[in-house]
Amino acid sequence: MSPPAVPAFSDALVILDYFGISVFAISGALVAAEKRQTLVTFIFFAVVTGVGGGTLRDLLIGAPVFWVHTNATLLLCIVAALVVWLISHRRLAGRALLWFDAAGLAAYATYGSARALSYGVAPVPAFAMGVLTACFGGIVRDVLAGEPSILMRPELYVTAAALAAGLFVGLSLLGAAIWLAAAVGAMAGFGLRGAAIARGWSLPGYRA
Amino acid sequence: MSPPAVPAFSDALVILDYFGISVFAISGALVAAEKRQTLVTFIFFAVVTGVGGGTLRDLLIGAPVFWVHTNATLLLCIVAALVVWLISHRRLAGRALLWFDAAGLAAYATYGSARALSYGVAPVPAFAMGVLTACFGGIVRDVLAGEPSILMRPELYVTAAALAAGLFVGLSLLGAAIWLAAAVGAMAGFGLRGAAIARGWSLPGYRA
Amino acid sequence: MSPPAVPAFSDALVILDYFGISVFAISGALVAAEKRQTLVTFIFFAVVTGVGGGTLRDLLIGAPVFWVHTNATLLLCIVAALVVWLISHRRLAGRALLWFDAAGLAAYATYGSARALSYGVAPVPAFAMGVLTACFGGIVRDVLAGEPSILMRPELYVTAAALAAGLFVGLSLLGAAIWLAAAVGAMAGFGLRGAAIARGWSLPGYRA
Repeated sequence: MSPPAVPAFSDALVILDYFGISVFAISGALVAAEKRQTLVTFIFFAVVTGVGGGTLRDLLIGAPVFWVHTNATLLLCIVAALVVWLISHRRLAGRALLWFDAAGLAAYATYGSARALSYGVAPVPAFAMGVLTACFGGIVRDVLAGEPSILMRPELYVTAAALAAGLFVGLSLLGAAIWLAAAVGAMAGFGLRGAAIARGWSLPGYRA
Repeated sequence: MSPPAVPAFSDALVILDYFGISVFAISGALVAAEKRQTLVTFIFFAVVTGVGGGTLRDLLIGAPVFWVHTNATLLLCIVAALVVWLISHRRLAGRALLWFDAAGLAAYATYGSARALSYGVAPVPAFAMGVLTACFGGIVRDVLAGEPSILMRPELYVTAAALAAGLFVGLSLLGAAIWLAAAVGAMAGFGLRGAAIARGWSLPGYRA
Repeated sequence: MSPPAVPAFSDALVILDYFGISVFAISGALVAAEKRQTLVTFIFFAVVTGVGGGTLRDLLIGAPVFWVHTNATLLLCIVAALVVWLISHRRLAGRALLWFDAAGLAAYATYGSARALSYGVAPVPAFAMGVLTACFGGIVRDVLAGEPSILMRPELYVTAAALAAGLFVGLSLLGAAIWLAAAVGAMAGFGLRGAAIARGWSLPGYRA
């Protein structure tokens, strides 16, 4: 609706978007594999997980939903589902995927906030859009699969997305160049999520 | 937002829409009946299942949500809930409803794709919109009821919607008349779903 | 998209909106507290529960999502989460919260319908928007937490929202002043929900 204030923004960061979509689509298909599902369900989970977060973001900020006017995005998700179906999921699952997912999380959180700012969204909601973009697809994947959501585990996951989005928005407000803000945000988010994977860092739960 | 490119399109297929709404509303109310719910919950489930898929489709393609500017659609869902409440649900449940649901699935998948194409959506997303329109209401119904979703069963359900939507979009791209594409798509989807009901056809699950 | 027909409407009732957001945000954080979650999850649940219903309403009626162009709404939810985190949740949980929630329910149902009518939505969908605004955030909260939803309990909850929204829309159609319609609707909804809390009123479940 409102034209993007800084359109080059989104163009420049589009690679982060495709990377995030692929990684999340693969993680969706892997959940289908763990549940011994059919190929159709593989594709459904790959699509929902791959595009879910960005879809909600675009609906909320009043942008055209990013995958509706192109064939490429959904085809990418379908290919990801086929790849997981055809090669043993054991090769993809486990720690390698965790690290790709960490990279996707950081990329997507940064990109989501950047896209929101480019549509004139206020800073706090723009920060929230980054977190949503990175986490919502995985949350829907877990709800549909009947799994306990990443939300309910103490692991640093949403927190890493919040760090990436928060640094990006904060540095942008302070006048940093987009590329600097994006690099710092994404690297910090990736680092924090990486520490959670490598060292089991987690947040303390609530004690009454 | 963008005006429909082929408005007569939606008008011509509107009967498929009302048929799909009624069948899905009844299936929603039947889930409430199985769970021994109250009349208010009957209505809630009838509405969510009846309009859920089309609502998500309209939000995604940037169309005005189809039931917001008319009273008829919600009243239709409320009547469906009352009908299920007043007559024994045993008469409605079982195989008769399965066959109505199959017809609703085929009708809705075709209509959903047609509406998406009429809003200038690209072919692959238009195909996805057909599948979503047919399946999303039932998925939300199952998540809200705490039931395992149709998504997670090997039965041909999403696949039948995909066949209907895929044939419709494919034939439209090849230049077939709308009515021919819609008839072929809906009949093929209904046939495949019917075979799943009558003969227990299902897709193979993933083997690692 | 369509400009509000009666903009003063929303302005006048905005206090109901903030009250509803706070109460629901607190109820979201309390669910996180019961599940011994982290502070990040507290905030996530506070935001989803606080703004969930109004977000869906705004998407459906084609209004700009109410919290996207201001920082205040999300900050209010974050503060609510911090308050629950910092003070013992035992002081907030229990009957006091139930009564605040009842007030939030009545306020939000009335406000949701008023906002829908002000965007030119037809009466039956405007009534549905009131119910959705009041109930949807709590439903998403329960689904994410893996709890049985308020929907599935016989308690008068959705029904009280329906009474508030229905009276408001009905009296508005009959030409009553906005303030009268809002006061009657909100008080009736609060009264019915209060009776459910105080006396355990509930609806009969379905018997086959």
